[in-house]
Amino acid sequence: MKTDIQIAQEATMLPIKEVTAKIGLTEDDLELYGKYKAKISNEYWNKIKDNEDGKLVLVTAINPTPAGEGKTTITVGLGQALGQLNKKAVIALREPSLGPCFGIKGGAAGGGYSQVVPMEDLNLHFTGDFHAITSANNLLAAMLDNHIQQGNVLGIDPNQIVWKRCVDINDRVLRNIIVGLGRKVDGTVREDHFVITVASEIMAILCLADDLADLKERLGKIIVAYTYDGKPVTAKDIQAVGSMAALLKDAIKPNVIQTLEHTIALVHGGPFANIAHGCNSVRATKTALKMADIVVTEAGFGADLGAEKFMDIKCRQAGLKPDCVVLVATVRALKYNGGVPKSELSEENLDALAKGIVNLEKHIENLQKFGVPVVVTLNSFITDTEAEYEYIKKFCEDRGCEFALAQVWEKGGKGGIDLANKVLETLENKESKFKPLYDTKLPIKEKIETVAKEIYGADGVNYSPEAQKAIAKIEDMGYGNLPVCMAKTQYSLSDDKDKLGRPEGFEISIRDVYISAGAGFVVVLTGNVMTMPGLPKHPAAYDIDVTDDGKITGLF
Amino acid sequence: MKTDIQIAQEATMLPIKEVTAKIGLTEDDLELYGKYKAKISNEYWNKIKDNEDGKLVLVTAINPTPAGEGKTTITVGLGQALGQLNKKAVIALREPSLGPCFGIKGGAAGGGYSQVVPMEDLNLHFTGDFHAITSANNLLAAMLDNHIQQGNVLGIDPNQIVWKRCVDINDRVLRNIIVGLGRKVDGTVREDHFVITVASEIMAILCLADDLADLKERLGKIIVAYTYDGKPVTAKDIQAVGSMAALLKDAIKPNVIQTLEHTIALVHGGPFANIAHGCNSVRATKTALKMADIVVTEAGFGADLGAEKFMDIKCRQAGLKPDCVVLVATVRALKYNGGVPKSELSEENLDALAKGIVNLEKHIENLQKFGVPVVVTLNSFITDTEAEYEYIKKFCEDRGCEFALAQVWEKGGKGGIDLANKVLETLENKESKFKPLYDTKLPIKEKIETVAKEIYGADGVNYSPEAQKAIAKIEDMGYGNLPVCMAKTQYSLSDDKDKLGRPEGFEISIRDVYISAGAGFVVVLTGNVMTMPGLPKHPAAYDIDVTDDGKITGLF
Repeated sequence: MKTDIQIAQEATMLPIKEVTAKIGLTEDDLELYGKYKAKISNEYWNKIKDNEDGKLVLVTAINPTPAGEGKTTITVGLGQALGQLNKKAVIALREPSLGPCFGIKGGAAGGGYSQVVPMEDLNLHFTGDFHAITSANNLLAAMLDNHIQQGNVLGIDPNQIVWKRCVDINDRVLRNIIVGLGRKVDGTVREDHFVITVASEIMAILCLADDLADLKERLGKIIVAYTYDGKPVTAKDIQAVGSMAALLKDAIKPNVIQTLEHTIALVHGGPFANIAHGCNSVRATKTALKMADIVVTEAGFGADLGAEKFMDIKCRQAGLKPDCVVLVATVRALKYNGGVPKSELSEENLDALAKGIVNLEKHIENLQKFGVPVVVTLNSFITDTEAEYEYIKKFCEDRGCEFALAQVWEKGGKGGIDLANKVLETLENKESKFKPLYDTKLPIKEKIETVAKEIYGADGVNYSPEAQKAIAKIEDMGYGNLPVCMAKTQYSLSDDKDKLGRPEGFEISIRDVYISAGAGFVVVLTGNVMTMPGLPKHPAAYDIDVTDDGKITGLF
Repeated sequence: MKTDIQIAQEATMLPIKEVTAKIGLTEDDLELYGKYKAKISNEYWNKIKDNEDGKLVLVTAINPTPAGEGKTTITVGLGQALGQLNKKAVIALREPSLGPCFGIKGGAAGGGYSQVVPMEDLNLHFTGDFHAITSANNLLAAMLDNHIQQGNVLGIDPNQIVWKRCVDINDRVLRNIIVGLGRKVDGTVREDHFVITVASEIMAILCLADDLADLKERLGKIIVAYTYDGKPVTAKDIQAVGSMAALLKDAIKPNVIQTLEHTIALVHGGPFANIAHGCNSVRATKTALKMADIVVTEAGFGADLGAEKFMDIKCRQAGLKPDCVVLVATVRALKYNGGVPKSELSEENLDALAKGIVNLEKHIENLQKFGVPVVVTLNSFITDTEAEYEYIKKFCEDRGCEFALAQVWEKGGKGGIDLANKVLETLENKESKFKPLYDTKLPIKEKIETVAKEIYGADGVNYSPEAQKAIAKIEDMGYGNLPVCMAKTQYSLSDDKDKLGRPEGFEISIRDVYISAGAGFVVVLTGNVMTMPGLPKHPAAYDIDVTDDGKITGLF
């Protein structure tokens, strides 16, 4: 069987200007990065911004399992299938993070015959957006420490600095460090921390900003530290906004590449789906909606995290309205949720399926609470059986959802025709009555409790003393009416990663809460969230290489 | 008077594919980064690599003073002037570092009407080369610490790690840090250091590598640490070579932009001129020599550092032969060398000029030791007088050098016609008998002493006990026959920055010596070298901004 990178490298790409010419872009609308990647110019945005919006389709999934779901593969495959049906469809994806490519996870460009290309470029530096974010993040940090060094007029308390440096590498030794050792000219000694670039608030800001003016506004609001008397210090106070925005002026423009079948894909931004909202950029989604009749996008992790934040944070902030949700599952993952160990997932097991399908059931119910029609799809595996498919199909239809099998990994767009037709029927026949889950004017605790009860199925929420104190302070500072951004394990609907299926009779424990004032949400931490991964014993980096004539090998 | 950025932004650039088409490049020979920047493809190199070489002209300068010399401005202006004379000339420059743009120094793209454009892009992310170097550098660091974390099979001594992390930001608090604090999963606690990206050995390697194969060979040789029993541990031992090369596969390709007069400029690589060799990439210089009849390039700092390393390291390693050297001075800088304070440099002062011109004299003598004909040029200032010009002209001609005044800041290429004609006459009439200064087979101390006596004018060299020990170890490890890379103050021919003019009766003190095995030189430190700058009280970052429609302001 061919690997993803072999399939990708064997594909014949069209020059990206030819791909985009099909929907009317001229070469002047693009800023090319080589022949196969481009950024979309501000001028093009100005030209199309008053177009009518296309339909917005969100692809999300059940809780991830070691069996794999293939959300990006389905997103790309659905886009390709719509293309096969001669629909004007555009895909809007997140950019992968460089660090994990060299660790365990590998890249993120879809799979099999449903990939975006060039996958090597996408997984390495791409158009430099993440490097720009890293630079802006670290410039702000340097300016903050320099402010202290040069007299600390603002009275910043070195023990209350909340801004962290970042790097787009999995580097565990940078999690907890001490900086500023040496002589007086080498700065003030203090504890510091690095996070991976995708965890930077600047990533979330870039993905939520409408334009450069909004970007600057948001950058200015970032809280970097508190003074000795407890007042917040912002990036604006540090006078770093103009320079950060200068570093980000190109990064805010959406990137365009193509799928293996030459469907247009806007791939832009990639915030964490725990401490941030886990969606591609608002700018890219809005651009896609102006370019196409149908936009297929995705959100991170399972629907309890990704879709909830897509609806309650991204769509609410940006004034977007999703018209349909595609909920991805696999037979294997549902059986895993039903208690089957990984080694036995290849055998038909209708009992386990019936037991595990409650995870899918809960996500269907959750998505219906947002008023958006749901299509369930199964990413097919060779070991699946007809009986299993039939069981799931009936289960979905009983709950008012369309159902379709997708074979897009193996067959590309052709394998997604059924799914595409179900999506088209849904867009035509079922009206979206989208509304966010909660009113942002509610107190923070009520917002947390709404998500915990309605989406996770919890009985209630308990708070650590730190979380209690932090919520009070945030409301006191005037940020009480922002949406909440829940950081929770992606593996369970609960906050315990081992509780599969549809857990009941549990409470959600809130460890801490903090404010991302620039992004515009309150981050709610349940348990520990890893914002700087480490490398494993055998990092993927050992196997990556480049030939003497520049061909990348070993990237997956 | 207009600022450099105003002049640059008012210029009408041609699409870079039109600029390069003039000397026969097709669009397929380029990898475009927007309309005005591109990388030169490997395919184009393969097409031209057997062309005959053009002539190579190095622009260097007297020791820098606060009065300013304008070496890059002269390099760009000379290239433009050769264009005005219908010569097929290409300029080969270094890329500026991002960090200093936000500190004191500002950008580096020439000045006035002799600039390369787009200057904002060049000074910010450009084509991402430095970000690629930062990523490769930090991946190697993460893999090194991960090796220790995962069992340390190689027996690396955490107290003998010499590889440093890097960031392209002026950030003093990262000079001396402690990493790996926290729990067992957070790594091993050790002292660590960040340098600025241009000080990474990977920068020097990228600039000296012939091609990807050579790059990988060199990356593998990097010494990152020593074992408990004192044996060197290389990047190859850490299994990081393939991944680093994958990150650098595009960064090794030369970038092409244009001057204000549409002269082709290859701008590629930018290693420090103290702990590294301070020249643009070998790949870019070789490409330029195959593209053009005349290539104008420059080296960092004054001729005692930049030109010496250009000759003894870059030209020697790459098999290049400079045909002419242009030595840049200003009347103001020569008077400053003669003891005139900065505030009085605008007044004619022939006595001070006569006293300070010995600095120029020594550089002329030095360059003649390499067997390369010298043209002296003065970067003109409005306060210069005819009498001063005449004095300098005669001084140069008495020493067998051509002389020309350059008014390229004010007039662009037209202001450099005299200089261009002198360079053309020299190329036609004076044969270069280039030879490096010393034989690399000499013991390390003899090489150091040759540079110290012949170039700096020292009476001798003294060594700290650490340096003595390090030299013995390096020769013992088998690296004794590499060239030396001197790290010395750029402000004086001596190792004391306050000794202006032509110091005599001094010794050079060697503090420490270490090996850059991948770059292929032995770094010799006189005094402390700052490899991580700090930000000043009023960083340039305070004044940089971007308008809502994406125009950068305040960059200089």
